[in-house]
Amino acid sequence: MNIVEEHKSSLNIFEQHESEVRSYCRSFPTLFTKASGSKMWDEAGKEYIDFFAGAGALNYGHNNPLMKQKLIQYLQNDGVTHSLDMATEAKRQFLLQFNKIILEPRNMNYKVMFPGPTGTNAVESALKLARKVTGRSNVIGFTNAFHGMTLGSLAVTGNKFKRNGAGVSLNDTTSMPFDGYLGAEIDTLDYLKSYLDDSGSGGSLPAAIIVETLQGEGGIFEASIPWLRGLEQICRSNGIMLIVDDVQMGCGRTGTFFSFEQAGIQPDIICLSKSISGFGIPMALTLIRPEIDIWEPGEHNGTFRGHNLAFITATQALEYWKTEDFSNDILKKGMLVNEALNEVVRAYPELEGEVRGKGLMRGIAYKAEGLANEISKLAFASGLIMETSGTDSEVIKMMPPLTIDIADLRKGLTIFKECMHSMVEQMALNK
Amino acid sequence: MNIVEEHKSSLNIFEQHESEVRSYCRSFPTLFTKASGSKMWDEAGKEYIDFFAGAGALNYGHNNPLMKQKLIQYLQNDGVTHSLDMATEAKRQFLLQFNKIILEPRNMNYKVMFPGPTGTNAVESALKLARKVTGRSNVIGFTNAFHGMTLGSLAVTGNKFKRNGAGVSLNDTTSMPFDGYLGAEIDTLDYLKSYLDDSGSGGSLPAAIIVETLQGEGGIFEASIPWLRGLEQICRSNGIMLIVDDVQMGCGRTGTFFSFEQAGIQPDIICLSKSISGFGIPMALTLIRPEIDIWEPGEHNGTFRGHNLAFITATQALEYWKTEDFSNDILKKGMLVNEALNEVVRAYPELEGEVRGKGLMRGIAYKAEGLANEISKLAFASGLIMETSGTDSEVIKMMPPLTIDIADLRKGLTIFKECMHSMVEQMALNK
Amino acid sequence: MNIVEEHKSSLNIFEQHESEVRSYCRSFPTLFTKASGSKMWDEAGKEYIDFFAGAGALNYGHNNPLMKQKLIQYLQNDGVTHSLDMATEAKRQFLLQFNKIILEPRNMNYKVMFPGPTGTNAVESALKLARKVTGRSNVIGFTNAFHGMTLGSLAVTGNKFKRNGAGVSLNDTTSMPFDGYLGAEIDTLDYLKSYLDDSGSGGSLPAAIIVETLQGEGGIFEASIPWLRGLEQICRSNGIMLIVDDVQMGCGRTGTFFSFEQAGIQPDIICLSKSISGFGIPMALTLIRPEIDIWEPGEHNGTFRGHNLAFITATQALEYWKTEDFSNDILKKGMLVNEALNEVVRAYPELEGEVRGKGLMRGIAYKAEGLANEISKLAFASGLIMETSGTDSEVIKMMPPLTIDIADLRKGLTIFKECMHSMVEQMALNK
Amino acid sequence: MNIVEEHKSSLNIFEQHESEVRSYCRSFPTLFTKASGSKMWDEAGKEYIDFFAGAGALNYGHNNPLMKQKLIQYLQNDGVTHSLDMATEAKRQFLLQFNKIILEPRNMNYKVMFPGPTGTNAVESALKLARKVTGRSNVIGFTNAFHGMTLGSLAVTGNKFKRNGAGVSLNDTTSMPFDGYLGAEIDTLDYLKSYLDDSGSGGSLPAAIIVETLQGEGGIFEASIPWLRGLEQICRSNGIMLIVDDVQMGCGRTGTFFSFEQAGIQPDIICLSKSISGFGIPMALTLIRPEIDIWEPGEHNGTFRGHNLAFITATQALEYWKTEDFSNDILKKGMLVNEALNEVVRAYPELEGEVRGKGLMRGIAYKAEGLANEISKLAFASGLIMETSGTDSEVIKMMPPLTIDIADLRKGLTIFKECMHSMVEQMALNK
Repeated sequence: MNIVEEHKSSLNIFEQHESEVRSYCRSFPTLFTKASGSKMWDEAGKEYIDFFAGAGALNYGHNNPLMKQKLIQYLQNDGVTHSLDMATEAKRQFLLQFNKIILEPRNMNYKVMFPGPTGTNAVESALKLARKVTGRSNVIGFTNAFHGMTLGSLAVTGNKFKRNGAGVSLNDTTSMPFDGYLGAEIDTLDYLKSYLDDSGSGGSLPAAIIVETLQGEGGIFEASIPWLRGLEQICRSNGIMLIVDDVQMGCGRTGTFFSFEQAGIQPDIICLSKSISGFGIPMALTLIRPEIDIWEPGEHNGTFRGHNLAFITATQALEYWKTEDFSNDILKKGMLVNEALNEVVRAYPELEGEVRGKGLMRGIAYKAEGLANEISKLAFASGLIMETSGTDSEVIKMMPPLTIDIADLRKGLTIFKECMHSMVEQMALNK
Repeated sequence: MNIVEEHKSSLNIFEQHESEVRSYCRSFPTLFTKASGSKMWDEAGKEYIDFFAGAGALNYGHNNPLMKQKLIQYLQNDGVTHSLDMATEAKRQFLLQFNKIILEPRNMNYKVMFPGPTGTNAVESALKLARKVTGRSNVIGFTNAFHGMTLGSLAVTGNKFKRNGAGVSLNDTTSMPFDGYLGAEIDTLDYLKSYLDDSGSGGSLPAAIIVETLQGEGGIFEASIPWLRGLEQICRSNGIMLIVDDVQMGCGRTGTFFSFEQAGIQPDIICLSKSISGFGIPMALTLIRPEIDIWEPGEHNGTFRGHNLAFITATQALEYWKTEDFSNDILKKGMLVNEALNEVVRAYPELEGEVRGKGLMRGIAYKAEGLANEISKLAFASGLIMETSGTDSEVIKMMPPLTIDIADLRKGLTIFKECMHSMVEQMALNK
Repeated sequence: MNIVEEHKSSLNIFEQHESEVRSYCRSFPTLFTKASGSKMWDEAGKEYIDFFAGAGALNYGHNNPLMKQKLIQYLQNDGVTHSLDMATEAKRQFLLQFNKIILEPRNMNYKVMFPGPTGTNAVESALKLARKVTGRSNVIGFTNAFHGMTLGSLAVTGNKFKRNGAGVSLNDTTSMPFDGYLGAEIDTLDYLKSYLDDSGSGGSLPAAIIVETLQGEGGIFEASIPWLRGLEQICRSNGIMLIVDDVQMGCGRTGTFFSFEQAGIQPDIICLSKSISGFGIPMALTLIRPEIDIWEPGEHNGTFRGHNLAFITATQALEYWKTEDFSNDILKKGMLVNEALNEVVRAYPELEGEVRGKGLMRGIAYKAEGLANEISKLAFASGLIMETSGTDSEVIKMMPPLTIDIADLRKGLTIFKECMHSMVEQMALNK
Repeated sequence: MNIVEEHKSSLNIFEQHESEVRSYCRSFPTLFTKASGSKMWDEAGKEYIDFFAGAGALNYGHNNPLMKQKLIQYLQNDGVTHSLDMATEAKRQFLLQFNKIILEPRNMNYKVMFPGPTGTNAVESALKLARKVTGRSNVIGFTNAFHGMTLGSLAVTGNKFKRNGAGVSLNDTTSMPFDGYLGAEIDTLDYLKSYLDDSGSGGSLPAAIIVETLQGEGGIFEASIPWLRGLEQICRSNGIMLIVDDVQMGCGRTGTFFSFEQAGIQPDIICLSKSISGFGIPMALTLIRPEIDIWEPGEHNGTFRGHNLAFITATQALEYWKTEDFSNDILKKGMLVNEALNEVVRAYPELEGEVRGKGLMRGIAYKAEGLANEISKLAFASGLIMETSGTDSEVIKMMPPLTIDIADLRKGLTIFKECMHSMVEQMALNK
């Protein structure tokens, strides 16, 4: 058996035993065995630069050394691993540090809820609480939003393919046009206001509006600062809970810890997950304004609310945020990526690429069907892991670890440029 | 500051910063710092015997040494931690071993889906798939069932307090009486059959029936083997998907790996979580009959589908199931608990206790309001962690790690007996 | 063209131009031209005795002479015909007489709502009001119930064929077993109580329970008096609105004006329609306990709320109820029908017929599929109009006008007996 | 007791016995006793010109003489009054004439369904059929739409006050902006297209789109012809059923029998009611393209589907449509009203009135809160019955019988002008 055959045989096991629902193992068809920082290696020893970062769960890179060290040490000392929501030293340290390093310096006062270990748990708990606080059932989500796969979260997700998967009507939610959805010249908040204020609009006053400030999965669509402030204003004047789903854009992805810091808005509820544990371990938080923390004990619960291994690495991850250096570093790298993307767009004007994003969530939207997927495939073959986004996979997306060093970042961008070049050449030949 | 004050100050942080939704830290008010096997220790060094086992997530005990060793080794080697659902060596090993050790010897042929890391993810994916396969929307759940806190799972959960937390109508589901719910002399399957067969019953043919073979959270209610077989027969003859939620009762809790083995039924879909990782790390599986594995790639997804640290410990945990020794051991310990509980019930006939359960999921139901909670409190003070169950917390529940050694098991039971004795004495004094 | 051909041609027009949804014109395939009292005539001059009475809309017979006279007089005087819910003399007279003749003598105090002219309008308004009064959304209906075809009423209707016609999930309702549904020895109120009281039953406290005291469409199932009283008690102690749908069984069908008089219960809301206008003209009432008449003006409205032609005949119809004679007369005729039906059942024990009903709503349930339909067909050919009921059309149903004279009643029963006889003979020959 | 006291006492009975939900008897507080053509008289003999026409149910005036004659004759001959959906001569005649006079000359081929006697029955049946035909559940309605009060129709109605009356979430429907709703410069079909075509819009392909061509209750908003054609095109290319609710705008209100004739669109389903009986008697039709008439017999039914008195007057009413004279006459009168309204708007520019409507459905929208109601009150005192519309009652609405003679029309308009004048004078004094 030669290497190719061996490789196939390694993947056979997934085809044979894993459900057809598997997806990324189809886009990146190899068997990974090792990972460190912004790199991964497969069983054949091939190295990949990772511009995917676990879809935002690995902002601090693979196997971040300090976190790993703390984690191993905790395990060796028989620290409590699983404890539902009992009090542990690991949880106490996380709560203390999260307040001291993240909330207090930002003048933010929030109660912390551990809603279960994934983003959709955080969203489901946020929706429940908003409905309880207001006594209303409707929740407004936005076009192209992505909030999760369980029924409550799915009902505010825009992607029709995912929604159809529900197999039932997704009720008690209303989809409204996101910033820019009706074209640059139309302020979609006007329609939202009509929907809320007009006595004949066919809607009902919602419990909450849930929003991503930058829609990652939806296609890298950014809400402008005035739009976000207008949205907050609408929520305030109507007694609507404002929920920011910062699951993917939080933890520094856009350059600040929370993605909405620049806009200066104060959400009633904030959802965090993905990179909050820092190490790729499942963990999620729901941050709640103290005034609306009206939960009954155990009204929302779950087995993996208190996952101490995650607390250990999460507490270590907070160290990055003690000064502004990390944030500045992200923004600098973001500019680098931005320049490279613009360069590529300009180089092939016939492809009508559109650069989108901010911080280290960047991408190019292409109109031609399948183009972004083609680039992703080429890049993978060339050692660069890079996903698409958008409901039609029309956007080639770059979200390297925030901790990536400049050399690797440049190297990844160079691979991308070369892939673009060879693809365009190939397209010219095929004409 | 003396020790008591220090202790209070440790817990203050949770009152101050954690949401009111927190629950177990109220029942067990101390700060845990260390755990091993069937024991936990708090910051004051006090030792507790754990008859709670992470609500079933710690069937193999805290910090199981072999799993811990594998985990540390994997971390030290920079194994891939987080990889969404890409192919990794850790995942491959788990799939192979799960098939070889669990499925094949039981003549079970199932595709494995990683639906996200918690039980509710498994349930939500099962409901979606059943609805897709049948093209129907209704799903039947049972009285006192517990399937999870996200909207889809909550809709088939019986607990009204949890259901009310939804803040919306929980639709597309029907609650049917569980085995024994209408009294011993009534076969509740008769009513189910009428509901399905009768053209005027007001129902609609369901996509699926979801059932726990032994309702842990609901109050330790056991479905009889004939009832389960009858249920399977009803599903078969009506083209209804049979889903067994083995999240809490699977992984050996009742004495066999799957809780339904003795009944000999073949569910269309099986949900596993809690102890499947073996180490208390978030992980869940949805097992699917190959014929109905009609998912589109990515139709249900999630960030933490492929959590390799969990695969490492889960693969190690499977070792317990290579022979029948472990199963026999659980059953033996179960008998020991059963005897102790019966002894207690007989000792205080005035309390009208009722022993329930099987394997190492056992308990006593008491009619007097608050009694079970009182015992739980006393036990905790005496160094035994033991939860209640039932929607009115009317059942004192014992679910030690399956790996607990006989000495600790006896010690725990002795503490329980002493608590019962002193409580009854106290009650006599108060009269 | 001979008479048969002419007749066909008369019916052709319906096949050609009327929707496939048409039904009774299929069971009774002739063209009716004239009707009076308890008789109808078709275009060929053939006479039919009417044991159907417009499914209960013609309790006072066709073209009741006194009502007709008042109606023609009103028309000739240019009385107001249509007036939405403006005040008219015709409406005033109806309100006065309804109070004087019906409500006051029964010590009943109810506000009268005109919800639109059909039974389903009355039911929809009742459900809305009950939900508004209680602030809850769930409503309990019963197996085999029939409440109407619009979405709100359909959701509490038991018939699956009708329910499937909705094309959407019928939510916010729960179907409970009617009296006797689980067999004679089981009190279905026990299950209802568990559903309401048990914190783990998977239900939610309903706004209302809606019930027919005798299920006509569902198969002539009668609720016993103790069951109805128990139901009222359950409603009272849980703050649940008790709605009696008396659309078909009210206006004297069971022997008293309201069907629940004998049981002595006091519903919170009562729905009337069908025979309330007395003349077969569309009209409906929703009777509301004054304390819960919390409607905002116009919160429920409709174009045909105030149909004065109906008020004119309805006021005249009330005259029947000034003394107890009419009621006694109905009961006497009912006994006559009952005897005849029992006679038939005894005559053909092999058919295992079961006599059901009370007052002038009587029938025989047969187990053999299609038997009741066959009898209905034979009867029609012999000049007797008689429908089936039950969700599988398993019941042959007799509901003549309450005003039928004894001779016609006996004649109809004789035709029925002869049809039974010839059918049984035919069945014997076919063996 | 003087006349005023007597009058009060006449109305007392309604306050005492009729539910609080009553509405028009509050706006027009007198007791009507007689009506003819376009006039009504109250018990004091006061005459009123009727610019309300039963909210569109009296297009041919009160007690139309020819219809009345036919009706009395039918009653005198003991014609069948009530017959569910059995075949009768009266129904046959209606079907024949409706085809001959209405459908055939317009090249329209539709099956006729009798869904029950009111507009909401027609809408409910249309929604059911569209959902059955497509197998989909979602239905799109428009802002400010009014389709009825039963749950299915209410779910596509825009008015929030009415929607809130439901007491449950109104699901399986989506509200879209009507023509002009987002301002004159925005084509709302663009948003509708995005909603349908965009894979991330958060919607689902609907079974149907239901539309009024001119929204009467909603505030007299007119859909432009290009918009209606665009809507039809969108339906065709997406396999969506196009339902036109012509309950209020059909039967000639806008100048042609169907309101959409000028636009030249071909709806899949058409709902008619209100004036279809011609005499103010409850009656409704659902017109269905033959290809989609896939109902099972009895899948939607109802007691008052076949109301022969309505068939008699309805058949007579069709006579108006044998030539184009009636249509021309309506349009001429409509221009007269239009001129008068424009005159009034110009006379008081400070009130910022906006003339709306077409045919004999006309009105003026005023921004000042309560103004339209004030005018309506003044007009009533001066002998003119005239309602407001719009969800905030901001529009003064004129819909006289189509058969009104020019003298009465002018007289009514003069009263209106005088009321406007005296109101404006009064407002000046109050400043």
